[in-house]
Amino acid sequence: MPPDLALPGGLGQARVMRQDTTELTVATRGQGLHDCTDAVRRWVEGTGIDSGLLTIFIRHTSASLLIQENAAPAARRDLERYFARIAPESGAYEHDDEGPDDMPAHLRAALTQTSLTIPVVGGGLALGTWQGIYVFEHRHAPHARTLALHVMGD
Amino acid sequence: MPPDLALPGGLGQARVMRQDTTELTVATRGQGLHDCTDAVRRWVEGTGIDSGLLTIFIRHTSASLLIQENAAPAARRDLERYFARIAPESGAYEHDDEGPDDMPAHLRAALTQTSLTIPVVGGGLALGTWQGIYVFEHRHAPHARTLALHVMGD
Amino acid sequence: MPPDLALPGGLGQARVMRQDTTELTVATRGQGLHDCTDAVRRWVEGTGIDSGLLTIFIRHTSASLLIQENAAPAARRDLERYFARIAPESGAYEHDDEGPDDMPAHLRAALTQTSLTIPVVGGGLALGTWQGIYVFEHRHAPHARTLALHVMGD
Repeated sequence: MPPDLALPGGLGQARVMRQDTTELTVATRGQGLHDCTDAVRRWVEGTGIDSGLLTIFIRHTSASLLIQENAAPAARRDLERYFARIAPESGAYEHDDEGPDDMPAHLRAALTQTSLTIPVVGGGLALGTWQGIYVFEHRHAPHARTLALHVMGD
Repeated sequence: MPPDLALPGGLGQARVMRQDTTELTVATRGQGLHDCTDAVRRWVEGTGIDSGLLTIFIRHTSASLLIQENAAPAARRDLERYFARIAPESGAYEHDDEGPDDMPAHLRAALTQTSLTIPVVGGGLALGTWQGIYVFEHRHAPHARTLALHVMGD
Repeated sequence: MPPDLALPGGLGQARVMRQDTTELTVATRGQGLHDCTDAVRRWVEGTGIDSGLLTIFIRHTSASLLIQENAAPAARRDLERYFARIAPESGAYEHDDEGPDDMPAHLRAALTQTSLTIPVVGGGLALGTWQGIYVFEHRHAPHARTLALHVMGD
């Protein structure tokens, strides 16, 4: 048996590591930030992993992920207006196969995140008090957005 | 022997985890998005890891990483034009040691990604149908860009 | 004993994996980039992990993380001026509970990173020669910013 299995020692943790994955579908109701913190947290807690790393990956290029202020709805409205302004639908885009919100969606996704990694500490996410996990929908129409969740730890 | 080695159980997976790393060099041919999805996928599949987490890290500050639409070349051209517009070479920059494309390169890198994490599920990347992995070259001259790849799983 | 413990083999590594986490507090002295590369590197080296994955997660929404050019102070000043310009304090924001630097802070954080993942190779971070790790403070007042660090490997 490897010595670090028998002797966890003082540095780090030598329990045997494991992982789990799932898919989480978020039903968006048009453009804007959709809070998915609770759904993600519940899944992580259900895996029983006490210490580790959570990865959230969104399998789309016209919606993205963002960790943002979870207390003030006005902050989220400002954020939505900001992205509507810096990557506007009124732009002259070559690619508009799916309408005027098609290309701005890809731009807003490029400026935000496709994947987020969050440490798991003491059985919970290491989020700060004011941090929420959001799916940022960039299309006008409601969509079912798929997140691939992965957690690894012990 | 720890019980979770003997008894994989129902929660997660208790096979012994392993990892692998490599460096991948991408030869860019001037500014724009360079698709490296196939090279990354081939390496991951070659490691034989069935379930886990892939990390891609670009070791530069004037090129970056992006997951974007892989079907429409027009969408990629719009994206390149967009970043050329919001972080323009015509800006008044204090730092221009390497020419007018030096500082805009750092800005465009700051607005996009230095690292990407993608779950590995069923022996393959959990990318959506329309997602490709791109090196976003921000300099005019061709460069050899080094990616550090890391996969961990079982 | 599982066969890959007894026979590390040629593919990947079959040593037993472990992980470690810590919190790192960075005292910022007003807006701008604060280098924390050395503190992060020292902690990773102290864990004794030779090969693996480092994650840095900032537990705030008005400060963020960025990997940027570590040699030219002028490049960092240009970058700070750029974000001050594209997400200005003079904007008309609905959310200004904590003053004119409140909402721009959230916008600048949304455009940069809440988490960074960096492979650990040969006992060190796989950073490129010119890459430094920065906490990007978006508020005027000094803050104590908490980073959750997580490393996993062998």
